[in-house]
Amino acid sequence: MFENKTEKPDSAKPDDSSRVDVDGALLGMRQDIDAIDAKIVSLLAERQRVVHQVVALKKTHNLEIYHPAREADLISKRRNQASQIGLDPDFIEEIYRSVVRRSRVTQSRTMALKSVRPGGIVLLVGGKGEMGRFFKACFHRADYQVRILDRDNWLDVQSLCQGIDLAMVGVPIDVSCQVIQKIGPSLPLEAVLCDITSVKENPLKEMLKAHAGPVIGLHPLFGPSTSSLDKQIIVATPGRDNHACQWILDQFTMWGGVVVRSDAREHDDIMGIVQALRHFATFAFGQFLKRRGVSLSRTLEFSSPIYRLELGMVGRLFAQDASLYSEIIFASRHRRDLLKDYIASVNENLDMLEAGDKGLFQREFQKIAEWFGPFSEQAMRESTFLIDKLIERF
Amino acid sequence: MFENKTEKPDSAKPDDSSRVDVDGALLGMRQDIDAIDAKIVSLLAERQRVVHQVVALKKTHNLEIYHPAREADLISKRRNQASQIGLDPDFIEEIYRSVVRRSRVTQSRTMALKSVRPGGIVLLVGGKGEMGRFFKACFHRADYQVRILDRDNWLDVQSLCQGIDLAMVGVPIDVSCQVIQKIGPSLPLEAVLCDITSVKENPLKEMLKAHAGPVIGLHPLFGPSTSSLDKQIIVATPGRDNHACQWILDQFTMWGGVVVRSDAREHDDIMGIVQALRHFATFAFGQFLKRRGVSLSRTLEFSSPIYRLELGMVGRLFAQDASLYSEIIFASRHRRDLLKDYIASVNENLDMLEAGDKGLFQREFQKIAEWFGPFSEQAMRESTFLIDKLIERF
Repeated sequence: MFENKTEKPDSAKPDDSSRVDVDGALLGMRQDIDAIDAKIVSLLAERQRVVHQVVALKKTHNLEIYHPAREADLISKRRNQASQIGLDPDFIEEIYRSVVRRSRVTQSRTMALKSVRPGGIVLLVGGKGEMGRFFKACFHRADYQVRILDRDNWLDVQSLCQGIDLAMVGVPIDVSCQVIQKIGPSLPLEAVLCDITSVKENPLKEMLKAHAGPVIGLHPLFGPSTSSLDKQIIVATPGRDNHACQWILDQFTMWGGVVVRSDAREHDDIMGIVQALRHFATFAFGQFLKRRGVSLSRTLEFSSPIYRLELGMVGRLFAQDASLYSEIIFASRHRRDLLKDYIASVNENLDMLEAGDKGLFQREFQKIAEWFGPFSEQAMRESTFLIDKLIERF
Repeated sequence: MFENKTEKPDSAKPDDSSRVDVDGALLGMRQDIDAIDAKIVSLLAERQRVVHQVVALKKTHNLEIYHPAREADLISKRRNQASQIGLDPDFIEEIYRSVVRRSRVTQSRTMALKSVRPGGIVLLVGGKGEMGRFFKACFHRADYQVRILDRDNWLDVQSLCQGIDLAMVGVPIDVSCQVIQKIGPSLPLEAVLCDITSVKENPLKEMLKAHAGPVIGLHPLFGPSTSSLDKQIIVATPGRDNHACQWILDQFTMWGGVVVRSDAREHDDIMGIVQALRHFATFAFGQFLKRRGVSLSRTLEFSSPIYRLELGMVGRLFAQDASLYSEIIFASRHRRDLLKDYIASVNENLDMLEAGDKGLFQREFQKIAEWFGPFSEQAMRESTFLIDKLIERF
């Protein structure tokens, strides 16, 4: 990159014989490091064996796996030890977060096999879609009987519904209500009917109309590429007979998921912001970069890690499925109005830009900063942590 | 959070006496794990001692510190060992990336002491600002003589400029040209004049007018809170006598920084996108959330890790200094026109939203996706990696 790169600007090179000594000494030290590393890795393997014993014991006695208090305690013990022997406690915490997470994943994989209702029969409506295949694998691993109802076998709907404990509707948002109406009459009264649509108000209404038994709306906030349910969020909007629906939520919890309860209206309002607004803003940003003909590769050369991360968030959107995002953005009149309000709000900055009014910008900035409150500081900490990870990796 | 949380839905609880046995067994296993962990942390401390010896030896003999080949070799040895003894090699690689990075940081800290021109005299103009203090510390650690010129000692400008090797102007963007004009006449002809303003075209022109000797424009793409220069980017826009300016770039490189060359016009165009557009879009998003009165805490409960990350990027902006962002956004007429074009581009989506035209959205989306090309896939991989880190940590 430089025209006149000078090699070692300030130092005379040592002569050859002392160079050999240094190389020998360095080699010795590197062998010491390798020997230490080999011991560390052996100990990690030994640790894994003990963790497996713990899991086996817990499984036999039906004890819960995830134990946040134990994790916190373990990490603070290692931090203390580190301080005492001259290591940076943050470094040791970083290492042990990886270790503990691995041990949790090992435990969750075992728990993925656990069933709240072994042998229960689950009918996945739209089971050949990506989310359908994801849940098929989850239920299958946990010893449920899984049946698939999709476009190609609707004629068998009666027999497929016989004796089921749960019918889960996972179809594109625009046909969701229609499919619910169609399946309703075939369901046994005691079966739970749920959907996994990313809007909740209309599908929940339809489910309550179509089925007289237990009903619950679900929205898993993750995609089918998720490797496990560990810490993933599922929103549950109760419909009818919560008690009869509880086992499904228990099953998700047992698989490591986090269930958040809401009503359908609140869910849809929040998702307008969390999904539609966010995706639309990202879409509009990418759209402008393309229109402007910006050179992505050259801007990346000029990029601090945080810009790389932000541009990555935009690029990520366009690596995914257009129809998924169009369904989210055009889900309802209400949602489209929200986005039009957003555009109107962006427009209100035109005069400020035209006038070059820095003072107005700063006053507006301050008000927004106050409104964000302590979240800003927390966001700063979290994103700084991630930027460090990005630098480390790439 | 649940109304009817049933505790352990599928299992009869073991009686009290077997429970005591299980607790005892678990306690024993946990003690085993703690003992293993204590050994691991001791070994990490021992490893650190050997690394310090390596650094001391390298420093004495002026050997380069960072050794990518050695890092790659070390990690592949540990991966092999892991495979052989039943550990996931990816897990061990994750651990050792942390270990190796720590060891690199330890080594870089030592290198921060290295000087390309020991005893050289550096005058920091605006040295009491945050970036000024940052560079003061860098040059100081590396045995430069550092002098500070700021508003309170302008009367001493003549004596402060005597015999300097470098004058670095780091003042707010709106007074940058003015300060350059003012310092020009006092500079020795052979001294390098550089600035660190975040726009380059005008300050570079002013520097070439104000000083007849070597001139270079710099833009460090990082803030004063950066812990080291490791992998941080500095854009250099050459002005006059590159050869005489080279030592400054060598110094940044030695401190671990990455120098990217550009001309002032290209730099300013790219920064319009990388800084002004991006910050303005983020500002407008935060502004709308506030206007709408969105409940941040409740939306976060409904958040997948990726939304948390994206909202964090917005919150992060508002944790910082309003005047910094107003200077970036209002830096030039050209830049304000860019932002007005962006607003116009966002507006063009209004009809599509009004008409609920999903087809149009999908076609537009596809075109943008094609334009992003392979970057999207890469962004998907990188951001998935970060999301995993986020889940692990929080």
